[in-house]
Amino acid sequence: MKIVYSDDHNLHDGLLFPDGDTWGPSAECPARANNIAALFREEGFGDIIEPDIFPDGRITRLHTPDYLEFLKTAWTDWERSGANGSNARPEAFVGAGMRYAETENIVGKLGRYSFDATSPIVKGSWQAIRSSANVALTGAELVKGDARIAFSACRPPGHHAASNYCGGYCYLNNNALAAQSIIDGGARRVAVLDVDYHHGNGTQTLFYHRNDVMTLSLHADPLVEYPFFLGYADERGEGVGHGFNLNYPLPFGTGWDTYGDVLADALRQLQGFAPDALVLALGLDTFAGDPTTFFEIETQDFNKMGRVIGELGLPTLVVLEGGYSVDWIGQNTLEFLRGLEAA
Amino acid sequence: MKIVYSDDHNLHDGLLFPDGDTWGPSAECPARANNIAALFREEGFGDIIEPDIFPDGRITRLHTPDYLEFLKTAWTDWERSGANGSNARPEAFVGAGMRYAETENIVGKLGRYSFDATSPIVKGSWQAIRSSANVALTGAELVKGDARIAFSACRPPGHHAASNYCGGYCYLNNNALAAQSIIDGGARRVAVLDVDYHHGNGTQTLFYHRNDVMTLSLHADPLVEYPFFLGYADERGEGVGHGFNLNYPLPFGTGWDTYGDVLADALRQLQGFAPDALVLALGLDTFAGDPTTFFEIETQDFNKMGRVIGELGLPTLVVLEGGYSVDWIGQNTLEFLRGLEAA
Repeated sequence: MKIVYSDDHNLHDGLLFPDGDTWGPSAECPARANNIAALFREEGFGDIIEPDIFPDGRITRLHTPDYLEFLKTAWTDWERSGANGSNARPEAFVGAGMRYAETENIVGKLGRYSFDATSPIVKGSWQAIRSSANVALTGAELVKGDARIAFSACRPPGHHAASNYCGGYCYLNNNALAAQSIIDGGARRVAVLDVDYHHGNGTQTLFYHRNDVMTLSLHADPLVEYPFFLGYADERGEGVGHGFNLNYPLPFGTGWDTYGDVLADALRQLQGFAPDALVLALGLDTFAGDPTTFFEIETQDFNKMGRVIGELGLPTLVVLEGGYSVDWIGQNTLEFLRGLEAA
Repeated sequence: MKIVYSDDHNLHDGLLFPDGDTWGPSAECPARANNIAALFREEGFGDIIEPDIFPDGRITRLHTPDYLEFLKTAWTDWERSGANGSNARPEAFVGAGMRYAETENIVGKLGRYSFDATSPIVKGSWQAIRSSANVALTGAELVKGDARIAFSACRPPGHHAASNYCGGYCYLNNNALAAQSIIDGGARRVAVLDVDYHHGNGTQTLFYHRNDVMTLSLHADPLVEYPFFLGYADERGEGVGHGFNLNYPLPFGTGWDTYGDVLADALRQLQGFAPDALVLALGLDTFAGDPTTFFEIETQDFNKMGRVIGELGLPTLVVLEGGYSVDWIGQNTLEFLRGLEAA
């Protein structure tokens, strides 16, 4: 199995406020991807390769040109503005009844192009973000070729990002860009299955009006968990896309017994769609030991999860999303991929 | 002149991030109102009185009952959730294409009912917020009576708050509640003139479809200044409200020469409306020495500003909004009120 990975992700290392009133490192930290790569090397698992470089046209298939320009220039604009702080952050957002005004102020732009305050931009963010998209697109090329399975170790993650906004640690939607690339390569239908603990609101939004990409997501109920404002079961897609978005909100305390049953149902729906390929948005934050989770998935369960997904027999690109237990993210990812490969 | 003031405002004392990566006291701090009250006492200016208590029905004339309930319970919910931090804050907001879902999670609720991240809620916030509305409503009663001028020393301020969201240090829209109270007392028409450095987006939004309350605002151009997403000159009101909202966005560097001319134009428009009373949203953050401003209004200019507004000869309630130079806010407020009184 080819593992696509780049050290560029280390350039994105933002501060958040995880410890009450004190700024500290974001849970979405470089150690996540570094620990995966280190364990894979130690175990001799897979063949780690560098990403290829893809043109911006691959990004603007799903993201707006103005949003791309914002991401490219945000840090420089922040520095030039004399703003105080090592992390560029939004303050004000576009509230109900407000306008998507084309403000020239960088703090304003940060709000215009964000839906939350958890996605800071630091000096090296753009290079890491763009590289992460390349990691996903390289994985897509492998699956468009003769690879049955490939893994794109993306960082920063992508599934909360939509056409023109970042949020939830995400900037460009890596898994959606990969799915689009597979469609553009001639596939008639692609499924995106998201097993991250949090709803993949960006991916849902990007494909909500389409019937060539089916999006399915198992996640903590947004009634009680981030991202709160999308991810409910009655969101089924619109227009020709109606019926091609499936959400499985699950209660706190969900362990493999329940999760496995719901996953089996989702996989039946997915098979009915008869996709040519699968993009699997892999969040490891359902893990019982994850600092952000209220689910109870254990390490060995990720092996089972990989196995039942592998039994679909589809060309499958696995794209890394969340997972914040830096000590266990490597092992859990490995178990998932071993299960997928063994099926 | 009666000055309505309550020490309750001291209960609201939030942390923000004014100093780069370090949390620190918000610019909207207790010293603002305390320094005004102290200087007025020292100078023997006005007759300082406590606010009366008004029922929630006065608040729900403009704010939704669910938003009011949120404000009442947010701190308790935050504490019960085990959330970390002395200030309750939102993370995620309702982005484009998202739903105003009735999330049960307090972090979610904080985002549902906010348009920005600058309005933290601490243990005593609700008592201060509710008291601030009472301060404004007490002032309204004075002007509905025989007072020509009254001053409501409100803290926290209000003009950024709309029917169901806080933001920009504001929670309940004090000046709008006062205007509504004057209308409910039998006035046919009330004008709200906002001279804060920032656009009064909440006040505009609350009265945007009405022709009994005219809203006028002079402020820094939102193209380059907070709140970015409202406050442009082409926002004129809608439906029967068309023509009853006037915005005067002004460039950085604006001093009294320009400001005075634009104010004179606004006052002519206001006179054409022939209101029965005026609510004056007084922000002192146009002051050249204010840490947040790019305007150049000097202390003596506030006297002139008060004088030209006083020359309208309208029953006038002055409601305190922004102004972050704690050393000068008292003197600047005093100059404004002296000018108003002298006219």
